[in-house]
Amino acid sequence: MSASLELQPDLHRSRRADKRELTLHPDRALPADTRQRAVAREIYEQSARLPLICMHGHVEAEVFADNKPFTDPAQLLVVPDHYVTRMMVSQGIAPEALGIPRVDGGAVETDSRDIWRTFCGNWKLFRGTPSRYWLEHELVEVFGVDLVPGVETADAIYDQIAARIAEPGFRPRQLLDRFSIELISTTDPATSDLRHHARLAGQGLGERVVPTFRPDAVFHVDRPGWRAETARLAEVSGVDTSTYAGFLDALRERRRAFVAAGGLATDHGHLSADTTPMSETAAAVLYARALAGPVSPEEVQAFAAHMLFVTAGMACEDGLVMQIHPGVLRDHHTGVLARHGQDKGFDIPVATEFTRSLRPMLERYGHDPRFRTILFTVDETVYSRELAPLAGAYPSLRLGAPWWFLDSPEGMRRFREAATETAGFYNTSGFVDDTRAFASIPARHDLSRRIDAGYLARLVLEHRISQHEAVETAIDLTYNLPKIAYSRRSA
Amino acid sequence: MSASLELQPDLHRSRRADKRELTLHPDRALPADTRQRAVAREIYEQSARLPLICMHGHVEAEVFADNKPFTDPAQLLVVPDHYVTRMMVSQGIAPEALGIPRVDGGAVETDSRDIWRTFCGNWKLFRGTPSRYWLEHELVEVFGVDLVPGVETADAIYDQIAARIAEPGFRPRQLLDRFSIELISTTDPATSDLRHHARLAGQGLGERVVPTFRPDAVFHVDRPGWRAETARLAEVSGVDTSTYAGFLDALRERRRAFVAAGGLATDHGHLSADTTPMSETAAAVLYARALAGPVSPEEVQAFAAHMLFVTAGMACEDGLVMQIHPGVLRDHHTGVLARHGQDKGFDIPVATEFTRSLRPMLERYGHDPRFRTILFTVDETVYSRELAPLAGAYPSLRLGAPWWFLDSPEGMRRFREAATETAGFYNTSGFVDDTRAFASIPARHDLSRRIDAGYLARLVLEHRISQHEAVETAIDLTYNLPKIAYSRRSA
Amino acid sequence: MSASLELQPDLHRSRRADKRELTLHPDRALPADTRQRAVAREIYEQSARLPLICMHGHVEAEVFADNKPFTDPAQLLVVPDHYVTRMMVSQGIAPEALGIPRVDGGAVETDSRDIWRTFCGNWKLFRGTPSRYWLEHELVEVFGVDLVPGVETADAIYDQIAARIAEPGFRPRQLLDRFSIELISTTDPATSDLRHHARLAGQGLGERVVPTFRPDAVFHVDRPGWRAETARLAEVSGVDTSTYAGFLDALRERRRAFVAAGGLATDHGHLSADTTPMSETAAAVLYARALAGPVSPEEVQAFAAHMLFVTAGMACEDGLVMQIHPGVLRDHHTGVLARHGQDKGFDIPVATEFTRSLRPMLERYGHDPRFRTILFTVDETVYSRELAPLAGAYPSLRLGAPWWFLDSPEGMRRFREAATETAGFYNTSGFVDDTRAFASIPARHDLSRRIDAGYLARLVLEHRISQHEAVETAIDLTYNLPKIAYSRRSA
Repeated sequence: MSASLELQPDLHRSRRADKRELTLHPDRALPADTRQRAVAREIYEQSARLPLICMHGHVEAEVFADNKPFTDPAQLLVVPDHYVTRMMVSQGIAPEALGIPRVDGGAVETDSRDIWRTFCGNWKLFRGTPSRYWLEHELVEVFGVDLVPGVETADAIYDQIAARIAEPGFRPRQLLDRFSIELISTTDPATSDLRHHARLAGQGLGERVVPTFRPDAVFHVDRPGWRAETARLAEVSGVDTSTYAGFLDALRERRRAFVAAGGLATDHGHLSADTTPMSETAAAVLYARALAGPVSPEEVQAFAAHMLFVTAGMACEDGLVMQIHPGVLRDHHTGVLARHGQDKGFDIPVATEFTRSLRPMLERYGHDPRFRTILFTVDETVYSRELAPLAGAYPSLRLGAPWWFLDSPEGMRRFREAATETAGFYNTSGFVDDTRAFASIPARHDLSRRIDAGYLARLVLEHRISQHEAVETAIDLTYNLPKIAYSRRSA
Repeated sequence: MSASLELQPDLHRSRRADKRELTLHPDRALPADTRQRAVAREIYEQSARLPLICMHGHVEAEVFADNKPFTDPAQLLVVPDHYVTRMMVSQGIAPEALGIPRVDGGAVETDSRDIWRTFCGNWKLFRGTPSRYWLEHELVEVFGVDLVPGVETADAIYDQIAARIAEPGFRPRQLLDRFSIELISTTDPATSDLRHHARLAGQGLGERVVPTFRPDAVFHVDRPGWRAETARLAEVSGVDTSTYAGFLDALRERRRAFVAAGGLATDHGHLSADTTPMSETAAAVLYARALAGPVSPEEVQAFAAHMLFVTAGMACEDGLVMQIHPGVLRDHHTGVLARHGQDKGFDIPVATEFTRSLRPMLERYGHDPRFRTILFTVDETVYSRELAPLAGAYPSLRLGAPWWFLDSPEGMRRFREAATETAGFYNTSGFVDDTRAFASIPARHDLSRRIDAGYLARLVLEHRISQHEAVETAIDLTYNLPKIAYSRRSA
Repeated sequence: MSASLELQPDLHRSRRADKRELTLHPDRALPADTRQRAVAREIYEQSARLPLICMHGHVEAEVFADNKPFTDPAQLLVVPDHYVTRMMVSQGIAPEALGIPRVDGGAVETDSRDIWRTFCGNWKLFRGTPSRYWLEHELVEVFGVDLVPGVETADAIYDQIAARIAEPGFRPRQLLDRFSIELISTTDPATSDLRHHARLAGQGLGERVVPTFRPDAVFHVDRPGWRAETARLAEVSGVDTSTYAGFLDALRERRRAFVAAGGLATDHGHLSADTTPMSETAAAVLYARALAGPVSPEEVQAFAAHMLFVTAGMACEDGLVMQIHPGVLRDHHTGVLARHGQDKGFDIPVATEFTRSLRPMLERYGHDPRFRTILFTVDETVYSRELAPLAGAYPSLRLGAPWWFLDSPEGMRRFREAATETAGFYNTSGFVDDTRAFASIPARHDLSRRIDAGYLARLVLEHRISQHEAVETAIDLTYNLPKIAYSRRSA
């Protein structure tokens, strides 16, 4: 760049290191306005200490069953959290420098202290993001850190966290109590044998750590491992999956196993929300053709849509709540996928249609008292246009909490502002967290309670509801509505 | 659901009945911030008592012509208001329990007091919704109720309302005065003989209660009753509609009749905003084929789009203002339609395109001084992207008020925030209500004045306009702009 | 319209002329809330006086090279600014009355004082628009006007401005200093010989006024002048463009000339963001066919998409930053185009897809350290759904500032609220102005600094970042990030 484009030279005053103590302000994330904040604080105080219902977790059951100590600060807080690593990658830091494993086994940074320094040195990238908010909460509340992350403080913070996670009270199962988690669900493939849940049951945690049935890998016939997955499904279910009818029976068997292991829900990550059914014959033919060789992209989508419809029917049989998470184009950069695998921050949302897409399923099951579906989106435009009107009409439907990128202060606020007027509060699921970062779970629930309190406080001050109602609603959104939304239907 | 999922047991304190007196706070729906509220209140006070212009009503002319007393509280406030009933249906209450008639004449709840109890017992579902806001206003201002609805208060409130509507001053025509309604428009099919408007003219109300021409039923050739409707159109107009040319002549005749009855506008509810014309020959052929038998869905849409284009041309001939309300997929659940008929809360919005869709019409008539079109949407994404840029360019076009689900505090706020910077205030229509709930009309106008005052107050405090300008603008949005927008063009 | 629809008669009090002195409040456009405003003011004070980086200007290089005085107030502030003229056209004022030239040379208003009176008489139309905000700033800060525009003040204001622009200190080059413009880019067609930039270099301004390479006219093979443009490209580059290979070579030659003239960026205004490449053979065949005669609309779009992909490759060769401005349907009304030419306020946005459209380009170049692309949109729905997730992942990608209609107080606020949580601040370009109205440039930069300060102040008060961080971020958004975003990559 030309010489005239030098950076403003005299910025050293503001570029100095931030030496303040790291603290959490008791009023963080409550409204800026003093009067609104005072009301919000009163509401928040009534929901702040309620136990946590965590129905969409991504922590592996094995972690709880094994209950091993966490490895180190970088492996706990940086490397596995693609929200955190993608932000550094977006500024030109190579995934390898962050210790993200390569598919080909090539060399990546293995010095966790070095990875941690890179992370702390890039702390400013997270300004204004929810990652920053979670991380501050975790550092202070969970790990007792009192320094602001930066180049100069990285080592000291690393040592503080490392010492803490070596303590017996910081093992995964102990954190369940410390975090006040009443119920947590893992997310498990249809082919899971649920062995770790069996171990947990043996440890008396069978009703506290429950599985969720996620059959994406067997619903998408274009996935590289699809045939192997159907074979594995046959093996674990003991049902021959070489025909479509067998495939459905195997799914039913696994759903029964999940129910037996305490499962309350299924989960479905599809590109589109389409639920158009095929005829049973056409589905059977397509299934057979997919087993034999490649099918067209249109057929892949058609089968996935059909399986959502079929799943709704199965939900009526066994009462599992059906969660749908559509609208994300996975692995936008195939080079990152090939080099580092899935879930590396390159899943990008697309516009998602619900009104027409869900219609076949809702026409058939939308008024069935045995059916419950919870919808999530990363396309905010559908809140007021499609999801709230649908949830404000169909008894089987609840709106899930703001998801993924939208699980954030502004995202949560916009959700309540856009959805409440048409759907009310009682057609929403209440808060649902969705994270691989176990230590961030309390921060996420706490933030949600604060944002809901802020929104409710505004309604109180605008004289649209009473403070009494606001408190009752806050408690419902925090605790009662998630329990109701995820109660298994009586089939 | 598993035993661990019991509801939080000790919530009885917040679950106690709400015994406060039902009142309307004078500052309700004004901004929460004290300083902004003070400015907003000053602005609101200047617009608060202006008369009401109600150009998109759904109250039948017969109601005013007959001037019978309203039946009872449930039949007035609950049963016909699908905003209210759908919310209870969405929580699993059967439409039959709410007294919603069945198409097959099957049994539904007929005890209005029982329906009223169900409604009051579900009062909390409406928290944060505009229905709650309208209903509170109606209960206090119109019916003098001073109790918060609930299980324990339902009967007392029922009696209070029942007593009030028995009074002579609470008949429909008397409410026109009480509500300060200067002008109200009904919505009438193209086939209406306008007999009730003739009766109203005889009662001296011919210029106060005017018809709006809504030809949807004859523009959509796939509707079950379409052929019968065209026959009825021929009958009422005295023009043979067995050819396309006759069909157009019959429409022109009815438009003349509506003009003669004081009509100022036409109204068009289409799935899409498409205005692409067909050739006259192609339109005539399609019309003939549709009379003879079914045509394809694409042809149905093409004819509807063509008729919007044709309507714009007729508007230039007779000066009727053309309202377009696109983007709603009617009767999403065909089971509800079959069992209970249309307008039962199962009309769901879809994404709607305007820029390309309106282009044919605006290319041809957009600069014609005889043409005026007012656009409504339930897809908020088009405010800043398409509608405001179009309204900020074409002299024939005005943006209607936030419609349907968006006729709400947050919906109105977002509209001003999204549309004003590009379209200004003076390319909007000012407030237009749209309701079947006659008693809610004053509440709706009042809320709009409050929200506009709040938005204007913010502009004042951000020093973007003066307070003097804010007051003038508030008066224009409330009264002058609707009168200008709906003034019949001189053809 | 019927007699009952007379305007509210007694509005004369509020209709009186606005006699206040025109002033700029020091806290304008800062948050309305007192506490938030105080914090915002402290942040703003740190960025308010930084120099201006203007990387997307539409002022012609000739204006600076000639340095002639501006003609008169109407020709400076009204006639060429289609934001201003379209608003008056939207209220029924003919373009001719505003002095907008006709393509056929037909008569238009030539009395600038008369045009100015029309403009001042319609001052209220601009309430709540950014045009109003810029104009107030220009009138007071640049031209020393102290009267509120209106019918009665029009002549006095005209005289004040006319006197000011006659002063030697108000010539274009002098305004560069007065406005504290460190760097300004013009926008130049691929066929420009850059003669005025050569003159500027001779005047010592070669690094302060730089060109931007905008090849839209040669990328869209359906434009009426396309063949003539390719011929002109051959002439100015000295490279035969009768083949596709020659066409690419000619583009490369011109890019080198732009780089030599100080150019830092290219700019691309396409209807869609599609970047799907064609095979080189297919592109060559299509190019040859387009030279020989018309091609299909699909082919036009395919070639434009291909050329975006090709441009990204060239950017890796020479380091020019690639700006993409998609999603505007140009010349919505062909009658206005035929009568008055392009850029008359009838360019209307359409929904724009980025996730899939940019994928081919980002798959190939998204991780290339030599590549930098900056994305703009007039479709706000993509901020949180597509653009922020993309910018939060790909190192080559930065989000541009809110563009066109969205370059406004609410538009800027919504951008930060929607984009920051997912992309952070450091994946945005910082402020980029985009205007034909040279005198409005300081107002635009100042507004951006105010809105960013307001947003940052809220984060401070919600305890999401420290005030120290807020100040540093404000300075980065104002000055450092635009310099970084537009630094030419080392190829």
